[in-house]
Amino acid sequence: MPSELSPIHSKLFEAKAAKGLTFDEIAKALGKDEVWVAAAFYGQAKFTPEELAQLADLLGIQGLQASLPDDSWWPNRGLGPSPPTDPVIYRLYESVLVYGHAIKAVIHEKFGDGIMSMIDCKINITRKPDPKGDRVVLTFDGKFLPYAKW
Amino acid sequence: MPSELSPIHSKLFEAKAAKGLTFDEIAKALGKDEVWVAAAFYGQAKFTPEELAQLADLLGIQGLQASLPDDSWWPNRGLGPSPPTDPVIYRLYESVLVYGHAIKAVIHEKFGDGIMSMIDCKINITRKPDPKGDRVVLTFDGKFLPYAKW
Amino acid sequence: MPSELSPIHSKLFEAKAAKGLTFDEIAKALGKDEVWVAAAFYGQAKFTPEELAQLADLLGIQGLQASLPDDSWWPNRGLGPSPPTDPVIYRLYESVLVYGHAIKAVIHEKFGDGIMSMIDCKINITRKPDPKGDRVVLTFDGKFLPYAKW
Amino acid sequence: MPSELSPIHSKLFEAKAAKGLTFDEIAKALGKDEVWVAAAFYGQAKFTPEELAQLADLLGIQGLQASLPDDSWWPNRGLGPSPPTDPVIYRLYESVLVYGHAIKAVIHEKFGDGIMSMIDCKINITRKPDPKGDRVVLTFDGKFLPYAKW
Amino acid sequence: MPSELSPIHSKLFEAKAAKGLTFDEIAKALGKDEVWVAAAFYGQAKFTPEELAQLADLLGIQGLQASLPDDSWWPNRGLGPSPPTDPVIYRLYESVLVYGHAIKAVIHEKFGDGIMSMIDCKINITRKPDPKGDRVVLTFDGKFLPYAKW
Amino acid sequence: MPSELSPIHSKLFEAKAAKGLTFDEIAKALGKDEVWVAAAFYGQAKFTPEELAQLADLLGIQGLQASLPDDSWWPNRGLGPSPPTDPVIYRLYESVLVYGHAIKAVIHEKFGDGIMSMIDCKINITRKPDPKGDRVVLTFDGKFLPYAKW
Amino acid sequence: MPSELSPIHSKLFEAKAAKGLTFDEIAKALGKDEVWVAAAFYGQAKFTPEELAQLADLLGIQGLQASLPDDSWWPNRGLGPSPPTDPVIYRLYESVLVYGHAIKAVIHEKFGDGIMSMIDCKINITRKPDPKGDRVVLTFDGKFLPYAKW
Amino acid sequence: MPSELSPIHSKLFEAKAAKGLTFDEIAKALGKDEVWVAAAFYGQAKFTPEELAQLADLLGIQGLQASLPDDSWWPNRGLGPSPPTDPVIYRLYESVLVYGHAIKAVIHEKFGDGIMSMIDCKINITRKPDPKGDRVVLTFDGKFLPYAKW
Amino acid sequence: MPSELSPIHSKLFEAKAAKGLTFDEIAKALGKDEVWVAAAFYGQAKFTPEELAQLADLLGIQGLQASLPDDSWWPNRGLGPSPPTDPVIYRLYESVLVYGHAIKAVIHEKFGDGIMSMIDCKINITRKPDPKGDRVVLTFDGKFLPYAKW
Amino acid sequence: MPSELSPIHSKLFEAKAAKGLTFDEIAKALGKDEVWVAAAFYGQAKFTPEELAQLADLLGIQGLQASLPDDSWWPNRGLGPSPPTDPVIYRLYESVLVYGHAIKAVIHEKFGDGIMSMIDCKINITRKPDPKGDRVVLTFDGKFLPYAKW
Repeated sequence: MPSELSPIHSKLFEAKAAKGLTFDEIAKALGKDEVWVAAAFYGQAKFTPEELAQLADLLGIQGLQASLPDDSWWPNRGLGPSPPTDPVIYRLYESVLVYGHAIKAVIHEKFGDGIMSMIDCKINITRKPDPKGDRVVLTFDGKFLPYAKW
Repeated sequence: MPSELSPIHSKLFEAKAAKGLTFDEIAKALGKDEVWVAAAFYGQAKFTPEELAQLADLLGIQGLQASLPDDSWWPNRGLGPSPPTDPVIYRLYESVLVYGHAIKAVIHEKFGDGIMSMIDCKINITRKPDPKGDRVVLTFDGKFLPYAKW
Repeated sequence: MPSELSPIHSKLFEAKAAKGLTFDEIAKALGKDEVWVAAAFYGQAKFTPEELAQLADLLGIQGLQASLPDDSWWPNRGLGPSPPTDPVIYRLYESVLVYGHAIKAVIHEKFGDGIMSMIDCKINITRKPDPKGDRVVLTFDGKFLPYAKW
Repeated sequence: MPSELSPIHSKLFEAKAAKGLTFDEIAKALGKDEVWVAAAFYGQAKFTPEELAQLADLLGIQGLQASLPDDSWWPNRGLGPSPPTDPVIYRLYESVLVYGHAIKAVIHEKFGDGIMSMIDCKINITRKPDPKGDRVVLTFDGKFLPYAKW
Repeated sequence: MPSELSPIHSKLFEAKAAKGLTFDEIAKALGKDEVWVAAAFYGQAKFTPEELAQLADLLGIQGLQASLPDDSWWPNRGLGPSPPTDPVIYRLYESVLVYGHAIKAVIHEKFGDGIMSMIDCKINITRKPDPKGDRVVLTFDGKFLPYAKW
Repeated sequence: MPSELSPIHSKLFEAKAAKGLTFDEIAKALGKDEVWVAAAFYGQAKFTPEELAQLADLLGIQGLQASLPDDSWWPNRGLGPSPPTDPVIYRLYESVLVYGHAIKAVIHEKFGDGIMSMIDCKINITRKPDPKGDRVVLTFDGKFLPYAKW
Repeated sequence: MPSELSPIHSKLFEAKAAKGLTFDEIAKALGKDEVWVAAAFYGQAKFTPEELAQLADLLGIQGLQASLPDDSWWPNRGLGPSPPTDPVIYRLYESVLVYGHAIKAVIHEKFGDGIMSMIDCKINITRKPDPKGDRVVLTFDGKFLPYAKW
Repeated sequence: MPSELSPIHSKLFEAKAAKGLTFDEIAKALGKDEVWVAAAFYGQAKFTPEELAQLADLLGIQGLQASLPDDSWWPNRGLGPSPPTDPVIYRLYESVLVYGHAIKAVIHEKFGDGIMSMIDCKINITRKPDPKGDRVVLTFDGKFLPYAKW
Repeated sequence: MPSELSPIHSKLFEAKAAKGLTFDEIAKALGKDEVWVAAAFYGQAKFTPEELAQLADLLGIQGLQASLPDDSWWPNRGLGPSPPTDPVIYRLYESVLVYGHAIKAVIHEKFGDGIMSMIDCKINITRKPDPKGDRVVLTFDGKFLPYAKW
Repeated sequence: MPSELSPIHSKLFEAKAAKGLTFDEIAKALGKDEVWVAAAFYGQAKFTPEELAQLADLLGIQGLQASLPDDSWWPNRGLGPSPPTDPVIYRLYESVLVYGHAIKAVIHEKFGDGIMSMIDCKINITRKPDPKGDRVVLTFDGKFLPYAKW
């Protein structure tokens, strides 16, 4: 676990390990996707009070809502060193270094001058069987936002 | 265009603009995907001599192979400042900062201790119509590589 | 002028100086705001072919469209060192350091978990007379984007 | 909350959450704006002893003045990593990268050689209803300071 | 020991010191190589539950598996400052600075466009006697991975 | 080719490409190893006048010695950005991040307090056939240097 | 001269050298202080058209105003690496590292919560004879600006 | 207070606040200047044992000398991030960026090739009344040191 | 003392202060030089078990060997920020910036292509009386290591 | 040669190479030390007009004084990347990282609170024969400067 995690998020990870649950199992219980739930465990997404209540039941944690009672603030997003040192996360970063300009150029040709939103974006991971070695299929589905002109 | 482009890659972009071709049209002519072709235009992937010959015909460039004659070396991969300053490329980088740990955790749960390769990886971009605003669907399809133990 | 400007953008600045036009005068001719026009002069926003034609007439530049003929690429956004060394630009950066968390907290209270878009955002500058010294009123009007959950 | 907050500022946030007050409600009680109050909660602005007394009453904190008794020092201004990793704060930073030169150029045309003060500056945030999605209107109202010559 | 070590990894080092065992002796007991075992002690490789059980016996640590119960997460890889300040580790880094391009060029000539995997890679260290001073022979044996084209 | 190469080194690469020679073929002609020769082509090792004469003959370059006449200075060692952005070179750097402490610990156990020299060090690359995919075997053979005490 | 100087500013330095004038002599001719004039030579302050005309006469440069004709833009302020590598400039930087907090604390005690302006600031250098070695007396005379509250 | 302060220096600040003394009042009691005393409070200058005894009396701290008993070591000089994030300290840093070269050039003209010492340097701050707003006069009085030649 | 010191090294410094011993006195007792002993106090050199026993006697510390029992690991070398902020250490760093190339050039002329070892290197400091102010004579005596060729 | 050298300094190196002179030979002709002369060749020290005249004679360069005519400015000191990438210069830098605190501590014990000047400092290099391999003896002889108190 990265050392920047707050105590409440560390407790979530510990309870998950003690229960032996996967993110996918937790996600199904909450009606969410496993990547989004994992992001919320790392403090990078925000549970509603209802989701916190469900999570507290599922993980057997008491006082979870009391620990996160206030709607007016939330842990800062952004985690880990940059550039990343962990090889799994570095490979994502390497895709920005090597393919970032190509992705930008193709988005520009297909959509015009604008960006792919990372706010209105859904991320999924699936396992694709392959006789030469199974593959990770990582999908970003983000809204195109054209630049305003004024 | 990023200022690090070599003269030969700048010439590719100019010829493409003069011909009015999209990456998709060039890719179809070469039997490749548009993202891979865009990456090769930025010097981040390597054409074979046969692809260079096709490209020279398509773009009307003379002496393209003579400019890239040697099989023994190739421009360095990695382009642009880090962190990126361009908003399109920054959003990809933001996905590493915000969702990198979640993606790593889910890959670990689904596949075990290893990485998603960015070398044996195929990247595609499609446009998904949506009444609230069309969406960019960006897919990374990379081989899972388990860590060696010895 | 920052040294990263491309030749075509440097030529725009020279023609503007030779004609003695302000950004406001150019903006009125194009039906745009002066801040957006200044951004486009620095290569940070994109003129349409029609706007380029108007601009070429206004500034007396020949071949402007031929210099920027291709819809498929565009100069990278992001300009100057970070942190900025110029005092005018540094003060904007200082507002991020000193007031960034406060602005985030108030946006969160007023709108919920999301961001203020810098893509769908309009920026204006007005001069507000004040007997103790006139004031710069700088306004960002950006769409609120709530975080997707999935 | 950013981890650099001092214990006394953390206590302010906890008391605010326990009372269920918004920055706007606290600001109205103190006769101040919510952005300024939020900045002071983050240790980026300085309460007077009178304001501290009012705040202690409002939040039900005892000994607040005793915790901040000395007029002779104050927490350092400047908070969080640079460049920011949180997307809300990064967007403000992105405005410096993308629009900083344009803002500087227009200030220069309208006011001459000088800066917009970030010391004698007032910042406000309002919610502007919009059928396509409400908008954040963020305003900086700062005194123009011409460069001294000597 | 680097200060980033987790408590459980620090305990491994302390137990190893108390038992007076070398990495080579531990590695032989586990049927592994000493470099891999040292990497796992630093949290840079992952023991299986069976290996943890063997290790607990060998080092006389109780509750080792209970401290590392969960298969679903693992400490981040990547350790120490970059560039390294310790002279032993810096020399490895210096080999990247001085010989990195040469190694890349020779790999390219011998294998084509691709990389030497650092995931499917085995590292060994042997002592080679030499009358002028014994030598360290450090070997990386990594799978060649050709770049995908698509 | 990295942009930091001096004109004379760029000429070496061009002549090598024009002759269609590999580093291995050049190395055999000079009685050296291909990695060392590649390092010298990048200005990271120093040819003797005799080697320069042989090289000039082999590559058909005139005036090579005249371009490098002086024994009293030599291009600076160290090439490319740090951390490296090219994936081939980055993997070497990743080995420092992930395995550097383990390598240091094993060297310390086998040799005592000191370093593996990167000055009196020989580096070789061989291709090891493997039915699952051929492997790169990269060997560093460096003298152990114990720390002086005084 | 720092390499970032624009051609027009380099020409000013060359003309000054050719005329054998000191900054003090030029300053007296313009009715300014030598430090301000030196700053303007480095592009860090802005001459009026009248001052440019006087300067052109004094230095014997033709077309100086034509080279700097436009009132609408000006070279970016901020020069040289940070931290500075030149020992003279580094010592000023060292004063920030060593005495910055002390200076801030004393300003706070003497003036309250605010800053010493570096915009409305005049800088002088005088030579103070001293039998143990003459001394440089460097004075910053800057307006105190109290923080706005709103 | 910056977080790098040692416990003993934090205690000095607390005692000063409890006594309600200004740096100027403490300085007068010690026969020193307030800027030097403030620097020593931040651990950036060194009290003699006699000064420590006087200070202990003045502030009512017991065992102060016992806390700093050893003449053989002293806290490291240099405090806070670089570039500074606090606006008061940043303005000093800005003077290096904007006026550093001008100051260097004038010192060179007035004194020759050498530096203004920041070791044999005295710093004072005075308040200069001004109807347009009082001014901070900050003076550095440092010995000129010519470069040795040998 | 730098904050990175381990508890055992901090205890060495405290015991040294309590005994009122100088590094020179300790060095004479151990038969070593004071600079080497100071380096070992900072964890930058390694005592033998015999030296630790002598040191424990001299400083009156019990259990020193038990605190450092294991021959298999040692604190990382490299201490403090880079570039250094303390003026004493910065001056050494400044010598690298200003005289590094000159030193390299003269070593090359006197010895050929190689380095001065910082591993087999002895460092001494002597006080040289001088009527204009005593001088520090700092000597590095390091073995020349020629580059291997292979 | 480092790429930052000015044209005039590059010419000095070329003339030195063409004449086949060592720094020692040039130094003897000028009555200076070889390290100081090498520093001046890299633009890190300043020749007098008389020395320039001697040098022009010795190296057979015409117009040398005309190229460096003005006493009012001089190339910036500080050369090469930091941290250095060249192994010779890096070893000097490593001495700062590993031995900097020890050197500071011993200077403090021998001289008190102050620095070793790098301005009034003379640097020499001698070759010390040794049967195990000759040694580089590098000596810094710098004036001790006590901190001013005021």
